[in-house]
Amino acid sequence: MRLSSFTDYGLRVLMRLAGAPNQSISTGQIADEFAISQHHLAKVVQDLGRGGFVNSQRGRNGGLQLARPAKTITLGEVVRHLEQRFAIVECFQSDGGSCVLKPLCRLKPRLAAAREAFMSELDQSTVADCALTASGPTLAAK
Amino acid sequence: MRLSSFTDYGLRVLMRLAGAPNQSISTGQIADEFAISQHHLAKVVQDLGRGGFVNSQRGRNGGLQLARPAKTITLGEVVRHLEQRFAIVECFQSDGGSCVLKPLCRLKPRLAAAREAFMSELDQSTVADCALTASGPTLAAK
Repeated sequence: MRLSSFTDYGLRVLMRLAGAPNQSISTGQIADEFAISQHHLAKVVQDLGRGGFVNSQRGRNGGLQLARPAKTITLGEVVRHLEQRFAIVECFQSDGGSCVLKPLCRLKPRLAAAREAFMSELDQSTVADCALTASGPTLAAK
Repeated sequence: MRLSSFTDYGLRVLMRLAGAPNQSISTGQIADEFAISQHHLAKVVQDLGRGGFVNSQRGRNGGLQLARPAKTITLGEVVRHLEQRFAIVECFQSDGGSCVLKPLCRLKPRLAAAREAFMSELDQSTVADCALTASGPTLAAK
């Protein structure tokens, strides 16, 4: 079972912003700290904005901030939002996929229930629970 | 959140075999019925064999059969087996991945708990609960 790197990076961004709630941090700085592609991260940040998780200010003192207090953002809602483009198996695609078993299948509702159990577990934690501070050994070294 | 097509196909094979417990069915026939690649399916079947889920007999009356009664095989154990090569996010890879947040991360145990909730939900159902019969509208038309 995999989450996309898109979602993985989105969670990391929110964890980073939650660790510095009074700062604006640029996408470039986060990409640098995390040693990942700024281009890819910019798309993730755009989607986090669409989901109402971050605000982005342009300009010299601009950057990213959480749009809401970290303790009000559950990991479940973030993962649901960022993963909505990915189907757990092909019949969950918006076009229904091409599996010939669909009329007979008793697996699909069970996979849906399992996915919901996964998300419900993530609803138990918030971004605040996972906040990163820059004082740790790795980020501090950047 | 995605399962691999490898796992998706593996579940379909077990569902098909569970629907015909007294027959041996060839990989070629299942690939035909499901309209998927026989080459890909053969690899899936090999892994199902390694996991102790199917037995394969060569020869004229050969083919695949479930290695155990369908009602004793949970969906959770199948998915755990077939997905073991896939990391939920990169730090779950056997080499640990390259995420710089590892020393600080409070997300990883939460993702592990969510994955376990997903698998536990699948442990509630068996392959017998999802058995396919060839009498349905789609497979019967093949």
